[in-house]
Amino acid sequence: MEFIDQLSGVLSQVRAKRPLVHQITNYVSVNDCANIVLAYGGAPVMADDAEEVVEMVSIASVLVLNIGTLNSRTIQAMLLAGQEANARGIPVVLDPVGVGATRLRTDTAQRIMTEIKLAVIRGNASEIAVLAGEIAATRGVDAGSTAGNTMLLGQELATRLGAVVAITGAQDIITDGCRTILCDNGHPLLTRVTGTGCMVSALVGAGVGVTEDYLLAAAAGLVSMGLAGEYAAEASSYGNLGAFRSHIIDFIGNIAPSHILAGARIHVHA
Amino acid sequence: MEFIDQLSGVLSQVRAKRPLVHQITNYVSVNDCANIVLAYGGAPVMADDAEEVVEMVSIASVLVLNIGTLNSRTIQAMLLAGQEANARGIPVVLDPVGVGATRLRTDTAQRIMTEIKLAVIRGNASEIAVLAGEIAATRGVDAGSTAGNTMLLGQELATRLGAVVAITGAQDIITDGCRTILCDNGHPLLTRVTGTGCMVSALVGAGVGVTEDYLLAAAAGLVSMGLAGEYAAEASSYGNLGAFRSHIIDFIGNIAPSHILAGARIHVHA
Amino acid sequence: MEFIDQLSGVLSQVRAKRPLVHQITNYVSVNDCANIVLAYGGAPVMADDAEEVVEMVSIASVLVLNIGTLNSRTIQAMLLAGQEANARGIPVVLDPVGVGATRLRTDTAQRIMTEIKLAVIRGNASEIAVLAGEIAATRGVDAGSTAGNTMLLGQELATRLGAVVAITGAQDIITDGCRTILCDNGHPLLTRVTGTGCMVSALVGAGVGVTEDYLLAAAAGLVSMGLAGEYAAEASSYGNLGAFRSHIIDFIGNIAPSHILAGARIHVHA
Repeated sequence: MEFIDQLSGVLSQVRAKRPLVHQITNYVSVNDCANIVLAYGGAPVMADDAEEVVEMVSIASVLVLNIGTLNSRTIQAMLLAGQEANARGIPVVLDPVGVGATRLRTDTAQRIMTEIKLAVIRGNASEIAVLAGEIAATRGVDAGSTAGNTMLLGQELATRLGAVVAITGAQDIITDGCRTILCDNGHPLLTRVTGTGCMVSALVGAGVGVTEDYLLAAAAGLVSMGLAGEYAAEASSYGNLGAFRSHIIDFIGNIAPSHILAGARIHVHA
Repeated sequence: MEFIDQLSGVLSQVRAKRPLVHQITNYVSVNDCANIVLAYGGAPVMADDAEEVVEMVSIASVLVLNIGTLNSRTIQAMLLAGQEANARGIPVVLDPVGVGATRLRTDTAQRIMTEIKLAVIRGNASEIAVLAGEIAATRGVDAGSTAGNTMLLGQELATRLGAVVAITGAQDIITDGCRTILCDNGHPLLTRVTGTGCMVSALVGAGVGVTEDYLLAAAAGLVSMGLAGEYAAEASSYGNLGAFRSHIIDFIGNIAPSHILAGARIHVHA
Repeated sequence: MEFIDQLSGVLSQVRAKRPLVHQITNYVSVNDCANIVLAYGGAPVMADDAEEVVEMVSIASVLVLNIGTLNSRTIQAMLLAGQEANARGIPVVLDPVGVGATRLRTDTAQRIMTEIKLAVIRGNASEIAVLAGEIAATRGVDAGSTAGNTMLLGQELATRLGAVVAITGAQDIITDGCRTILCDNGHPLLTRVTGTGCMVSALVGAGVGVTEDYLLAAAAGLVSMGLAGEYAAEASSYGNLGAFRSHIIDFIGNIAPSHILAGARIHVHA
């Protein structure tokens, strides 16, 4: 079967299975991350305290950890939930927001990578470079430039962790170390709304909750968000950011296999 | 006076008195809960720390407790604020989000029900069944199905606590144990946007802040949200979720007694 | 150069320099505060824990402290970040949300004013009156009325602290104690959406991050938000609050020097 057909199959499965996506995330984009999972067809739950995350993750289809606004309480919750997820075979997705900007973020991401088996890591080029051990001049939570070859760093990280690495940017890279998919969907306006990176990680999580082919699940999430950006840019006259944000959710709520079949601009890296 | 006339009177009083609605709530829908109270005509304040909630609730018209994302800090704040509200005769509304999904939620809801006199509890059928002591297979924060008769459970809970119980679903049930109102307003798209349950509890809170007839206040909140869902579904072409969410706020900001008189689909259960 | 030309120059500099605006803020409007900074041309980062704020603020252009939902963890983070900002010459903006409503807010604002050198304080008339030592009947986070002369209180506070004081209301007042600017832009609907005050403080922060003329930066932020309110009121048919909120972000994302030159209604107080 063609890869593009399989991508649209992830979407169909999300709608059919309605995965429960447990997210422990930041207080900036938490509402958007819940709404985009609902729009995609999943069911979000955002419990973030150590007193309840172990129980909550045990009934979830997938766990998404996002380090956008960390504190000692939520770090503890992330580690406990991640360990329980591992013990139960529930897949875990990591969004290492702003890693490299502070010691707390770098140490926490490192600790999560060491103590928890991850299914997918979704970040921008700077964040992935930091995780891959490169020195990157991360500027807050922005996507900075990196000296190294982003694709190679992603492939190395994927191989080292046995996880899929999904790197968003002008051209997205999704790799498990062996297979590498490149995706050209998206729009620059996605960088002008907060939390679009967090939202794509949430979509990846929903996909990971319904298929064991995490490369496929990650690609489906990135293609879906890319198509949403293209649609929303046009629908908002290429510049109304409030409308753009709302149209992202409109599109994800209505996305059908036909949109992916007609619009996905992906190819397998030779 | 007809019940439907009284409903529209709640709305008029909210606009006239502008109740200060103190909400201690979750970090997912907190912004929506503030905005919908403002749109309805109330004034929201969201202080959630033990160091200030006692003072803040003392100047409020009503307190709304929502257990959507609990932690030890906010649990303490809820209990302190609730006790102070009781001492001052300020009514308290509880939204037991996801109760039954974890021990922390169930214990906290139980503790609130035991230690604080409640004016209204607003939940879905699963949540009310858990509170009523039934075993319900709550699935995260979703509305699950319950074996028992939802109306009977609600009536028993209302009688036991001396509170109004408002149960949202395809058909809403509002009961004080003696009188029971059924409401058919609403739209399925309300289940595809996060926090619509929290928002209806916030509207109930605003109503409770202006009248001692809590059954009426609760019914006014549920009818208003139901009408908003119906309007927003049509205004968003029955499927654009970003637009739908925005139109909910549009409608609540513009709702007039005439909308309730023309659109409310309620009847008293015989 | 005309003051109005200088105002539009602030906007151009925000777009050219893309200041990193570190905000430690409340959980109600945090998403809006991030999005409006992005729309204006800045880069937001919202780290709020003592374990990372010192590092984060050291790479920021400006620090914005907002006391809308305080707790002991975030108070500590605000003080540490503020002291580090002072040590590095990074300007600090304070939004004293609801000061006067509780002892915690009043004490925290007082402590911030005592321990941290501020560039700008942005509040409503009640909040500024409290800070200026007047007794104001602050009603939650609302703008209440004050007995004193708001302009004089603002000028005294500005002189005492060596900071710019920006007071939003039907007529905005921006003063450094010597120069005082009055601004008539804005629309009453801005009071019917939560967080518009927080958002204008975020815009002020972005301006303060690119120019040492804090009076100018503050005026640019207030004029921009005022113009956004005027645009959004018209674009949302003067009453659709969901649409109004979205159009605020549309406008700030598209605001150009020409909008300020054509629309600013400001004059220097004689």
